[in-house]
Amino acid sequence: MEIDYTGIKVIGFDADDTLWVNETYFRETEERFAELLEEYETKNKIDQELFKMEMDNLELYGYGIKGFMLSMIESALDLSNRNVSQETISQILDLGKKMIAHPVELLDGVEEVLQKLENRYRLIVLTKGDLLDQERKLEKSGLSKYFHHVEVLSDKKEHNYKNLLDHLNIKVEEFLMIGNSLKSDVLPILNIGAKAVHVPFHTTWAHEMVSGDERVNDHLKLSSLRDILKYLNN
Amino acid sequence: MEIDYTGIKVIGFDADDTLWVNETYFRETEERFAELLEEYETKNKIDQELFKMEMDNLELYGYGIKGFMLSMIESALDLSNRNVSQETISQILDLGKKMIAHPVELLDGVEEVLQKLENRYRLIVLTKGDLLDQERKLEKSGLSKYFHHVEVLSDKKEHNYKNLLDHLNIKVEEFLMIGNSLKSDVLPILNIGAKAVHVPFHTTWAHEMVSGDERVNDHLKLSSLRDILKYLNN
Repeated sequence: MEIDYTGIKVIGFDADDTLWVNETYFRETEERFAELLEEYETKNKIDQELFKMEMDNLELYGYGIKGFMLSMIESALDLSNRNVSQETISQILDLGKKMIAHPVELLDGVEEVLQKLENRYRLIVLTKGDLLDQERKLEKSGLSKYFHHVEVLSDKKEHNYKNLLDHLNIKVEEFLMIGNSLKSDVLPILNIGAKAVHVPFHTTWAHEMVSGDERVNDHLKLSSLRDILKYLNN
Repeated sequence: MEIDYTGIKVIGFDADDTLWVNETYFRETEERFAELLEEYETKNKIDQELFKMEMDNLELYGYGIKGFMLSMIESALDLSNRNVSQETISQILDLGKKMIAHPVELLDGVEEVLQKLENRYRLIVLTKGDLLDQERKLEKSGLSKYFHHVEVLSDKKEHNYKNLLDHLNIKVEEFLMIGNSLKSDVLPILNIGAKAVHVPFHTTWAHEMVSGDERVNDHLKLSSLRDILKYLNN
């Protein structure tokens, strides 16, 4: 496989689980949530019902911690047949607030890669989380200085990326996206004719899973972000 | 007062209570919320405590309906000394979901103004609500075709506007902002040297209030958006 990156001018970085740890905190919070409700259901059933609730509410709430908190509260009411205590509801609110206030843990090689690329390319953050959360994390991470700006998309489908490139006046052949999600950061990008690099994180949210290794020959898959430096000018 | 609008190329429109009704639904939901809790406190006390909770949570949750829902739940637990019923918590979730799904009601003259301005200026939506909510409202409103794109800011302070004009490559002297909030849409814009037009809505959230009529001589105040057509090329 030989992909030509010479025309690239702008690089979009996914944020959660590409620049910093995120999914791990959701998994940990789901563990705590299941413990809070263990008198009502098995861990397995609680996980399933919470995920189902998140999917049912996704169109209404979108992505991010606040929607996750609301779905946990609604699931707790359902799973307990409305017997869950007021104290537990309050603890669920605290779990969510702790997630929002969590310190940022950078992933391996991130700062080095950004330092080396910042003078050669325009770097932007491209995420579908909550705008305030993402701006806060970028601030805490100390990485803001490397990025031209942050774009939060309500979803990462082809039309969202097309609109974005259009409003930023970026040509598809100038754009490279780097992220941990095949479904959100890689496939839609390849489909619109831009380039994408996949850097998987060890944990993937079920909603982000895609079956099979589609289009494996038209994008790079790297085990560490640091390896991108072998392929780009820096 | 004579303000020169000839250099304007880009117009930013606030969305909530500038293009469509919004604050009214928050006021209505607060009424329902107070009714749900009337056995615990007076309407006045409930309003005050909910507002205080929203302010305490603002840094964590930011603006928008999901944060408002979480603050209602937390207030209900507090105001009832954790006696609020599970049924009431569930009704609060329903109140919020109804707000999210509410049909969009355009304000007077909006479509006419956008139609007349769209060929002369680049029009963008500039809001600090929740991205998904705002995109959904724009979609439902039928107004998307008039706008170049939507920008959601985590806040509307001077630095947020400066960053935005910078990343869109817009000069301050080319930019006009139109909105209903003196605090968010007018004063920060005047402070960075751009132009602003104030079109008040009959209801203003306490958080958006500013005292006095500051800088009244350097911006237009209109009673209807339609009146802007007297001042701009169309």
